[in-house]
Amino acid sequence: MSEQPGKYAYEGLDRVLHEKARLGILTSLFTHPEGLVFGEIKLLCSLTDGNLSRHLQVLEREGLVTIAKSSGEGRPQTSCRLSELGRERYLEYLEELQAVLQAASEQQKDQEQFNPGWSPA
Amino acid sequence: MSEQPGKYAYEGLDRVLHEKARLGILTSLFTHPEGLVFGEIKLLCSLTDGNLSRHLQVLEREGLVTIAKSSGEGRPQTSCRLSELGRERYLEYLEELQAVLQAASEQQKDQEQFNPGWSPA
Repeated sequence: MSEQPGKYAYEGLDRVLHEKARLGILTSLFTHPEGLVFGEIKLLCSLTDGNLSRHLQVLEREGLVTIAKSSGEGRPQTSCRLSELGRERYLEYLEELQAVLQAASEQQKDQEQFNPGWSPA
Repeated sequence: MSEQPGKYAYEGLDRVLHEKARLGILTSLFTHPEGLVFGEIKLLCSLTDGNLSRHLQVLEREGLVTIAKSSGEGRPQTSCRLSELGRERYLEYLEELQAVLQAASEQQKDQEQFNPGWSPA
């Protein structure tokens, strides 16, 4: 075995972002740079009010999302956006995900069972 | 917002496989179909003895890895391999990871900041 130590340690899989629900929330916000309101995220990520609140708190505390409460006419709304830091860390996280897929892809290169449909840049 | 509910729920990110250390262990075993001994996995995944033992127990209990102890000449060795079920579930898990990358990639399609270097099959 000639591989380097720690090759599969994936230190870049930051636990704040790697948690499944938070990864969904961040992906929904990344794909909606204009922001989303609480009810939209809840629906898109299939989360309960309590779960979404809890995870948004974690993300806000880490500076990854910004949360604004509006109280104009009609019902008050909570709207969320990815912060610049959140965007940077999300992209770094995605690079590590790519490393996992690339490792698997290299193994499968000569086999037909798994075709990830992409190749390393 | 016309997207389908649950689009970012990522149900396929199975918690058994999504846990960072276990994802590393499974990737190391997937890329070494001949199997690895305990000390090799420990090194490749930067885990302590205790952590690796604990995660291997979880994976064995779920039927994802098979563990064999040899007691021939020299030091006894623990060797691990991915089971057929483990291989299947790992590949299913990777498909869901691709879905995350694809969602991000679609968002970034017209931007230069993120080039994932792959396109959907």
